[in-house]
Amino acid sequence: MSIFNVELKKVVDDSYDIEIGFELQQKLITDLKNGLVGNLKKFAVITDSIVKELYAEKICHLLQEAGYTADIFVFEAGETNKTRKTKELIEDAMLEKGYRRDCCILAIGGGVVTDLAGFVAGTFGRGVPFINYATTLLAAADASVGGKTAVDTPLATNLIGLFNQPQKVYLDIATWKTLPERQIASGLAETIKHACLANREFFEYLNEHMEEIFTIDREACEHIAEENCRVKYEVVMKDERESGLREVLNLGHTVGRAIETVSEYQLLHGEALAIGMVAEAKLALRMGYVTEQEKDAVIELLQKAKLPTAIPTYIDREALVKKLYTDKKVKNGKLRFVIQKGIGSVVEFEKGVFATPIDEAVAREIIMEM
Amino acid sequence: MSIFNVELKKVVDDSYDIEIGFELQQKLITDLKNGLVGNLKKFAVITDSIVKELYAEKICHLLQEAGYTADIFVFEAGETNKTRKTKELIEDAMLEKGYRRDCCILAIGGGVVTDLAGFVAGTFGRGVPFINYATTLLAAADASVGGKTAVDTPLATNLIGLFNQPQKVYLDIATWKTLPERQIASGLAETIKHACLANREFFEYLNEHMEEIFTIDREACEHIAEENCRVKYEVVMKDERESGLREVLNLGHTVGRAIETVSEYQLLHGEALAIGMVAEAKLALRMGYVTEQEKDAVIELLQKAKLPTAIPTYIDREALVKKLYTDKKVKNGKLRFVIQKGIGSVVEFEKGVFATPIDEAVAREIIMEM
Repeated sequence: MSIFNVELKKVVDDSYDIEIGFELQQKLITDLKNGLVGNLKKFAVITDSIVKELYAEKICHLLQEAGYTADIFVFEAGETNKTRKTKELIEDAMLEKGYRRDCCILAIGGGVVTDLAGFVAGTFGRGVPFINYATTLLAAADASVGGKTAVDTPLATNLIGLFNQPQKVYLDIATWKTLPERQIASGLAETIKHACLANREFFEYLNEHMEEIFTIDREACEHIAEENCRVKYEVVMKDERESGLREVLNLGHTVGRAIETVSEYQLLHGEALAIGMVAEAKLALRMGYVTEQEKDAVIELLQKAKLPTAIPTYIDREALVKKLYTDKKVKNGKLRFVIQKGIGSVVEFEKGVFATPIDEAVAREIIMEM
Repeated sequence: MSIFNVELKKVVDDSYDIEIGFELQQKLITDLKNGLVGNLKKFAVITDSIVKELYAEKICHLLQEAGYTADIFVFEAGETNKTRKTKELIEDAMLEKGYRRDCCILAIGGGVVTDLAGFVAGTFGRGVPFINYATTLLAAADASVGGKTAVDTPLATNLIGLFNQPQKVYLDIATWKTLPERQIASGLAETIKHACLANREFFEYLNEHMEEIFTIDREACEHIAEENCRVKYEVVMKDERESGLREVLNLGHTVGRAIETVSEYQLLHGEALAIGMVAEAKLALRMGYVTEQEKDAVIELLQKAKLPTAIPTYIDREALVKKLYTDKKVKNGKLRFVIQKGIGSVVEFEKGVFATPIDEAVAREIIMEM
């Protein structure tokens, strides 16, 4: 008998830049010319059926004009297509077109596109570099920091995937102009969540600048993109593998994800999250962590952002309570929630643990009353 | 416009042990009790239809007796099942049984099982730990060092996957007793390749101990398992991401992989590799890097290991030449081979580059003569 030790200790540098600005297509090309991804010359542009015509085709042409090989790999827009099947179709199409390890993936779109494309990049040829060109507010709020990539399966949301960091992220605010208002509202839900859990000043800013955001005022939008990055970065930096602190980002998500699923995705993620935040603010109120006024301030800000704050009548409340147990924070069969503490902070249940065990009866009562 | 820098530099320690010995089932349990995977209590045992009855069921029972939760996830044995579909079925079965992030995957089987299970582990819940309990000589030679995991697709072998390091590898020599002779021979092809490219003494050892290996003599088999790990480790350690040096492990594979595919997997990987090594030894002879005697010594050792050394008559030679171009070493449309240099070394074409460009005409001639 013998033991052979495989020594694999090393320094890994996954650092990258997020560039926030207006119309960044040319900047992307300049960055590539300056060696952003070394001397790679082949770009697989992954996008969805909506963003393709709005932005991806144009960027693909810019790449070709600059002397690169570029092909568009498109899938039907929508969260329901963020599947292993779509990943497989894109992989096969890339192989068919002769893409191998010497390529770079360029994701152009919202969170569904960047989640999926980042996952494709992580396993194509055992990993090729990727760049995110994000075209939604939600992607700015949620998908640009953290390296989470994934697909959904019939039994679980975002449970098959990878931690995979991009080479660079572009947040092109100008693209928000083509977002339907409902999508902007949905993106604002994550933004408001960030304010609630980490930054009271940002909460006030949102309260004062909501109209500018909806008219895509450049300064206001750049500011919220930056603040979203900052909050998420500060949380994620300290906990890249989601062991403890990162759980705070789950504020509103215990109820929110459950509503999203029970609604069969009639509700957008941000809409479901908004309702979840209201439910969880009520829970925090009952536990004495927020005041009546603070709870109302959360609801009012969500309403200003044109988000729903009540559980739709068509949602089966019992199914919703049952669904809470599929949450990834469930431990030993016990529900656990991130609890808001005033505006701009959350409860630390015990050292390094930010999810608090809650009796089902309490959760049920709040849900039944909404 | 602003730039937000996401700083993600860190020290990663993926080190692990390979334990080589006879009947290591109890040792595995002891290691788990001693905290090999922390306090994880749920084990998804991934295996194939042959190994299930031979070893996996027993190990699963040992886990359960030791107080762990353990379920077997089985797929039909064979390289043709190392697919995205099989991965998907296992993932769904794991989710169905309630497996989430707080589990560990235990792969029990040969290279197909460890390749697939390591890939499942890498993307399940964005990564759960895994342990390899290898039951074949080929896994000892090939799959235990390097962290390569993957599946095959209709258009490419091993091109969708991940670099993912296990928590520990067990090479249980006793399990080799249940291997068909053809599988032992196939495993020996990678072993002989390692000797040819890195260690002349090991080549001599194999020449002198071939009979003991086929009778699964404990000392001889432990020795070859160790030497396989050592050669592979020394190469992989210096080049974890397969940029340069790691290419040396491709000795024999340019022709070998092409034969394997054109034979439609009638030939086992090791059998195809053996033929590929002969072709590439002939190429090295023609280029003056090995002598006639060295080329013959390679052929004789392969024959002693009961491996084929000629291209079967049913293989279409023209299809074979064409197939060479799907090799991952092809660069700018030009074939590149790893060339053996004497016994125990390979040609370094230029600094850090171990694949040498070869004219198709030369490769064709050698193939036509075999």
